[in-house]
Amino acid sequence: MEVIVENSDVLLYLDNKRKYLVKARKGEVLHTHKGFIRVDNLIGKPFGVKIKSSMDVEFVALKPTLKDYLQKIARKTQIIYPKDAGLILLYTNIGPGSRVVEGGTGSGALAGLLASYVKPDGKVYSYETREEFLKTAEKNLRRMGISEFIVLKKADLTQGIEEKDVDAVVLDMPTPWLVVPHAYNALKNTGTLASFSPTIEQVIKTVEAMRKNGFLNIETFECLVRRYQVEAGKTRPETLTVSHTGYLTFGRKFLL
Amino acid sequence: MEVIVENSDVLLYLDNKRKYLVKARKGEVLHTHKGFIRVDNLIGKPFGVKIKSSMDVEFVALKPTLKDYLQKIARKTQIIYPKDAGLILLYTNIGPGSRVVEGGTGSGALAGLLASYVKPDGKVYSYETREEFLKTAEKNLRRMGISEFIVLKKADLTQGIEEKDVDAVVLDMPTPWLVVPHAYNALKNTGTLASFSPTIEQVIKTVEAMRKNGFLNIETFECLVRRYQVEAGKTRPETLTVSHTGYLTFGRKFLL
Amino acid sequence: MEVIVENSDVLLYLDNKRKYLVKARKGEVLHTHKGFIRVDNLIGKPFGVKIKSSMDVEFVALKPTLKDYLQKIARKTQIIYPKDAGLILLYTNIGPGSRVVEGGTGSGALAGLLASYVKPDGKVYSYETREEFLKTAEKNLRRMGISEFIVLKKADLTQGIEEKDVDAVVLDMPTPWLVVPHAYNALKNTGTLASFSPTIEQVIKTVEAMRKNGFLNIETFECLVRRYQVEAGKTRPETLTVSHTGYLTFGRKFLL
Amino acid sequence: MEVIVENSDVLLYLDNKRKYLVKARKGEVLHTHKGFIRVDNLIGKPFGVKIKSSMDVEFVALKPTLKDYLQKIARKTQIIYPKDAGLILLYTNIGPGSRVVEGGTGSGALAGLLASYVKPDGKVYSYETREEFLKTAEKNLRRMGISEFIVLKKADLTQGIEEKDVDAVVLDMPTPWLVVPHAYNALKNTGTLASFSPTIEQVIKTVEAMRKNGFLNIETFECLVRRYQVEAGKTRPETLTVSHTGYLTFGRKFLL
Repeated sequence: MEVIVENSDVLLYLDNKRKYLVKARKGEVLHTHKGFIRVDNLIGKPFGVKIKSSMDVEFVALKPTLKDYLQKIARKTQIIYPKDAGLILLYTNIGPGSRVVEGGTGSGALAGLLASYVKPDGKVYSYETREEFLKTAEKNLRRMGISEFIVLKKADLTQGIEEKDVDAVVLDMPTPWLVVPHAYNALKNTGTLASFSPTIEQVIKTVEAMRKNGFLNIETFECLVRRYQVEAGKTRPETLTVSHTGYLTFGRKFLL
Repeated sequence: MEVIVENSDVLLYLDNKRKYLVKARKGEVLHTHKGFIRVDNLIGKPFGVKIKSSMDVEFVALKPTLKDYLQKIARKTQIIYPKDAGLILLYTNIGPGSRVVEGGTGSGALAGLLASYVKPDGKVYSYETREEFLKTAEKNLRRMGISEFIVLKKADLTQGIEEKDVDAVVLDMPTPWLVVPHAYNALKNTGTLASFSPTIEQVIKTVEAMRKNGFLNIETFECLVRRYQVEAGKTRPETLTVSHTGYLTFGRKFLL
Repeated sequence: MEVIVENSDVLLYLDNKRKYLVKARKGEVLHTHKGFIRVDNLIGKPFGVKIKSSMDVEFVALKPTLKDYLQKIARKTQIIYPKDAGLILLYTNIGPGSRVVEGGTGSGALAGLLASYVKPDGKVYSYETREEFLKTAEKNLRRMGISEFIVLKKADLTQGIEEKDVDAVVLDMPTPWLVVPHAYNALKNTGTLASFSPTIEQVIKTVEAMRKNGFLNIETFECLVRRYQVEAGKTRPETLTVSHTGYLTFGRKFLL
Repeated sequence: MEVIVENSDVLLYLDNKRKYLVKARKGEVLHTHKGFIRVDNLIGKPFGVKIKSSMDVEFVALKPTLKDYLQKIARKTQIIYPKDAGLILLYTNIGPGSRVVEGGTGSGALAGLLASYVKPDGKVYSYETREEFLKTAEKNLRRMGISEFIVLKKADLTQGIEEKDVDAVVLDMPTPWLVVPHAYNALKNTGTLASFSPTIEQVIKTVEAMRKNGFLNIETFECLVRRYQVEAGKTRPETLTVSHTGYLTFGRKFLL
């Protein structure tokens, strides 16, 4: 049974809306509306145990997953949602061993997500021009324990891509259409380009650039996820939903 | 540049609706409404090249991805869609190295998909009671080149799970609620249970069983994906969409 | 050109999120974050004119529509949305001259909406058991100027319906299935029953009761409306949407 | 009880997918896969009665509603769906007594639908340039018994609108933005313009034209309706849905 050790990250779970990502180290205390919790008391106990707050409210000490780290990052900045990330994985064929170019890095969330699927033999090359984002991303990725599979690069994807023969290029940036010709050159034959954009005008320009620059099987999707309240006699979708994050466009390189 | 060799699988692409999965071997001929193609002419050429049919129509020889294999299987039987598979990956935290119990095997599509993310060090244990499905699945998984990461088992998940300390249990079967207590025993502490069900009554029973048997952070979703036609002056969602495949339910084990 | 007279209702429009329903009467002042507006200055001016607040911000004096009244009521209580009301109209065939039984009255929003389509020769009989709701509804309906087409009744639909040969019965109440046999008796031959319910369990019970009690062409729908931000270069759906209000069920009486 | 008389339209209902709109006249016979039905046998019987086919299969003789007529028209040509028509009614405030300009007429479906809500005192002015559509529309509207509330006009809305002080202008045509200035002139102060368009580029142009030509409270929506299969133990949305018909844009005139 996996045990919480010093410096383990722990997700303290109260309910589906209240989950706290903390580190099990000496003196660490989590303060909540339901009282405080001495996190260091968890050291030596197995993940999954219950722990009571000072107000005698029960929390459970879960082991954080990739998604939990992403949600923590998401609180501070706009990141790709699991629904979109899942489609990107399936449509790009990114998996263990893949070499991927990605950008802009932003908070590092998408780079970290992709890296956790390309390990142990693959690599993610993540481009970002803004120094302050690179610093934040580096911190986030180190915490996720995924840094070794990522190369952070201070460079502009619209100016070119240094890597060759990569399996996929994944774009989450304002002008993806400017990267399309560079993506063609960086991709191995029949590699995949993926682009995430909030507005339909970005999509139209990107698809046009892909048609002109050696991509086929071009497809654009949007993905909606609706959460349900499930309880006998009260089952129904939740009232409010995030109904738009962005459009996803995919295409495959062919030889001109 | 990756080259097509004897016995390579090739995806002959005409347009987004006409893609043909063929094997590049001596004498292989693909017959289509746009004429026939001598597939063996592709041997020795790089993936991504164009090839003309007997009616002088251009096809492109893509390298098939996981998704292409799944879509081929999907033509014969109902399988999990990429949209749902993507959410399963993100919410279960299945990735390189994971050990996963899955069932029922059916055509093997979901087992194959999970296996392609757990490799090279993980394993998928796939349960199925029906002999004929096991045979079909074995054939499908061999073609996908993924067999070594999967253990096909002729056994009934509602009767128990032999594996211990697995990272995730993924269910796509008519009575998932009967597997919930066994899933609890098979999962390592704070592992994830995922269940896919077409009807809301299945969801209600499964969520109730999870609440009673040591799971928390229980969440139910449905995922809708809509495809767009993107072309300057004609951009719009496609008219018809698959608006329901099934509901997805996730939950994490905790220590009782 | 229609002119604002004393006691006219006016909708003061600032932007799509800030609209104020006021009455043009002596001394009436509207206070907003953008300054105050002397509403009585509008008397004698045509609907559609601009008027400036004390902070020199321009508002427009629109004539309130049915929907504007409903949205004002909606701020205080849960009411049927335009999307659902529109489907009810189309599927029940309620229109000028129709006689309709409706309940529970609640705030009167649905009764008022239906009444505005059955006038000048039709009538809505609206049932409600709770005295305080009847009072609120009466006030709301008087303001909408629609009272003469509605009969408010303090009675319980689950105990029976007094009217005969009505064109439609429209239910928005917790236990619609208990009303189904009474609806059958109240409806003229081939009249329509409509029911709005937030949970799927209510729908299942209601459909079952309809099947057993002389209804056919039974159909259940849900309706999702998504708002767009439209602006060259920035066009996209809004992020958050009301993704669930309730399920709509319709059926037609036949002769047993 | 309303009785079927000679020349009554009757909707012969077998199940939700098989409904036949027929006329009860001497010698009329309906041929179906479930045998034939002598429709004239229904004369003198009440709507809602059962009638058996030659193969002893039971049908029910419903009275057709507006929606049933629309669905019959829809089989031959693309028409506005009930979901969209419902939103148009609610957002335009069209109801008994309204005067409405509409176009293009097409099959007459939308004109007929609006007319059935403006009667008995309102009027719909429907514009169409193509002679053959006007003929079809006239026939359809006569059958629906709604002709007297509609003025069919062979004229081009992009060239101007003759009517003044109308309550609403409703457009379902390829270039609605060209009609916007004319709509402004035709509408009474604070009247509503509604436009239905399949592509997002049409929407962008129309919204821009509305912003420049005296409209505010401009809102664009799309409406999705999903049908459910409701049956204890098998409840779920249907698999395939019409996920896109068109975008709806609304705006209100103000005084410049």
